[in-house]
Amino acid sequence: MRYYHTMVRVSNLEESLDFYCNKLGLKEIRRHDSEKGRYTNVFLGPDENPEAMVELTYNWDPEDYKGGRNFGHLAYQVENIYDLCQRLQDAGVVINRPPRDGHMAFVKSPDGISIELLQADGSLEPAEPWLSMPNTGTW
Amino acid sequence: MRYYHTMVRVSNLEESLDFYCNKLGLKEIRRHDSEKGRYTNVFLGPDENPEAMVELTYNWDPEDYKGGRNFGHLAYQVENIYDLCQRLQDAGVVINRPPRDGHMAFVKSPDGISIELLQADGSLEPAEPWLSMPNTGTW
Repeated sequence: MRYYHTMVRVSNLEESLDFYCNKLGLKEIRRHDSEKGRYTNVFLGPDENPEAMVELTYNWDPEDYKGGRNFGHLAYQVENIYDLCQRLQDAGVVINRPPRDGHMAFVKSPDGISIELLQADGSLEPAEPWLSMPNTGTW
Repeated sequence: MRYYHTMVRVSNLEESLDFYCNKLGLKEIRRHDSEKGRYTNVFLGPDENPEAMVELTYNWDPEDYKGGRNFGHLAYQVENIYDLCQRLQDAGVVINRPPRDGHMAFVKSPDGISIELLQADGSLEPAEPWLSMPNTGTW
């Protein structure tokens, strides 16, 4: 058995790819447009040959997406949580839970999917501006 | 960057472990009880040393969990989709989308998280009882 992917629905494919790829740093592995089903699927991974992927499903007919509490979040271990959070913030992403402890942060996708970022191999030394940055909203 | 886990909230840990482990076949990797946070986290993977995991969060104070359309499903590639669907059905799990094509099936967790099952390396020959089994509910 192999964990293959997690599927999340997105209301705007361009905004979502900007978030997941340009800002978060994932790569597009493959894409499928279905004229018949009126959807586009895009598979994303941390590298070109990932073990597990995120599948974005963009339905061409609009729908209003809201979060359900039974779903929690996607989590990624990252090489340097401060560098990534800085890059995300510079790109206009709200850091809902800043990495005050040098270990954990939360952001949200354009459709409100919570994304947890975890410092690989423990924690960095607590440091500003994160140390004194308050939480924003929910995650 | 490494895809680390997907977190889903569960309203009954025993029922959820029965579903994810006994029925679906995942293994418990580790568990954390937090008296202070009043929650239990259980990490599950296809094997003892998984690349990506599912994290069950059981909050000790009850909450009603409903699905959000922005979240889609978790997906697993499996060795034999007929054997697994038979095992799940024998254990009382509704096969919401039977593997009529020998390739894809959907079931749901006790809290309504959609789980996609995919035949690894293509499709099995279409076969009964799946071939003529109708869909049930949504997924």
